[in-house]
Amino acid sequence: MTIRLYDLAGADERCRFSPFCWRTRLALAHKGLEVETIPWRFTDKAKLPEPSNGRVPVIVDGDRVVHDSWAIAEYLEDQYPDSPSLFPAGAGRPVALFLNTWADTVLNPAVAKLVVSDITDRLHAADLTYFRMSREKRFGMPLEQVTAERDAALPGFRKLLEPLRQPLRRVPFLGGEAPAYADMIVFGAFQWARVVSPFELLAADDPVAAWRERMLDLHGGLARAVPGRG
Amino acid sequence: MTIRLYDLAGADERCRFSPFCWRTRLALAHKGLEVETIPWRFTDKAKLPEPSNGRVPVIVDGDRVVHDSWAIAEYLEDQYPDSPSLFPAGAGRPVALFLNTWADTVLNPAVAKLVVSDITDRLHAADLTYFRMSREKRFGMPLEQVTAERDAALPGFRKLLEPLRQPLRRVPFLGGEAPAYADMIVFGAFQWARVVSPFELLAADDPVAAWRERMLDLHGGLARAVPGRG
Repeated sequence: MTIRLYDLAGADERCRFSPFCWRTRLALAHKGLEVETIPWRFTDKAKLPEPSNGRVPVIVDGDRVVHDSWAIAEYLEDQYPDSPSLFPAGAGRPVALFLNTWADTVLNPAVAKLVVSDITDRLHAADLTYFRMSREKRFGMPLEQVTAERDAALPGFRKLLEPLRQPLRRVPFLGGEAPAYADMIVFGAFQWARVVSPFELLAADDPVAAWRERMLDLHGGLARAVPGRG
Repeated sequence: MTIRLYDLAGADERCRFSPFCWRTRLALAHKGLEVETIPWRFTDKAKLPEPSNGRVPVIVDGDRVVHDSWAIAEYLEDQYPDSPSLFPAGAGRPVALFLNTWADTVLNPAVAKLVVSDITDRLHAADLTYFRMSREKRFGMPLEQVTAERDAALPGFRKLLEPLRQPLRRVPFLGGEAPAYADMIVFGAFQWARVVSPFELLAADDPVAAWRERMLDLHGGLARAVPGRG
């Protein structure tokens, strides 16, 4: 049966530009499913089938209505398991490298800005001068100045973690039911902060905090065995 | 044979805090491999085995020396394929949701800031007022002002793409040899920009640009069939 897709359109009906609808359009093509697209405009909210949240994409598959591009991808994967997978095994390594680079360029530098001045307390005497000079050159200021406003910076830091929070609300690990290297990439940053600094990065009710506990429990508490400063 | 791991240590030798070494330490444990950790300080560069880049982690496995946490993860996965995988099939969906949230909270808003004023040219007359009012409320300024400095904003935008660039330098798709939903998530943003705006987001020699061409070619040129404005 042909699936109907409500698809954002411009003045020219052929102009389809929603990034979210394109996710769905390509997912349907990937699965080899027949689709009829229905051009839709922002002001056509009343024309959408229910349930929807007044936004596209919305698909109608027989008597099922599914909205939200992520929910649609999960629906298609689960409903049509014999067609090409949207989440194939082969996706693991490149996407882990995406996370690795995200951690290197976004997460770790953000953690550094919150804890770097505490690292000096932990360093071997031989390293102190090297560390302070090289890091103060990198930051362009004394390390104490980098972290001086960290209470104010914390909400911005926590906002950066939203991509982690979404999957970790649903499954125990980025690897799903079991940890994968993606978990280790991200955990490295939190373990670093935990060992060098008493400054708490996470709210107690953050799903990322619960995941951090699970990571600390792995392998008989391997990472927990190094005392934290919190 | 026991693998040796050069591991960043503080004054207290038990204080191990490098986020990169923790990635490797947990990867070794995940694989069930015996490890002897060698405490190392920033100023011990001469004590590292070669090849290294003067940084840890470095592992020595028999006569193999491997440095850089990502290279080590790949080495362990390839060298010890019968132990638990670092990149298991099950990792696909949660990590795709990480990417989905990254796209929603980082990529798409960044694209919007570069092209949003061009969208009005494409909209159906019925949508124009709604779109301009709702988006100008969101941005707190006229749409033309949002994009006025886009040439200056472009380098910062391209820097955001580094997590995409790294895997796409190595494999054709985030899914590896074939596209996965992760590719569709990200491509949605680029297709949106392509359809609504003549403003070019990518340098011609960016691996992300070559990947965008591959995405445009999928399914007989499904996405390319919608004319761009570039």
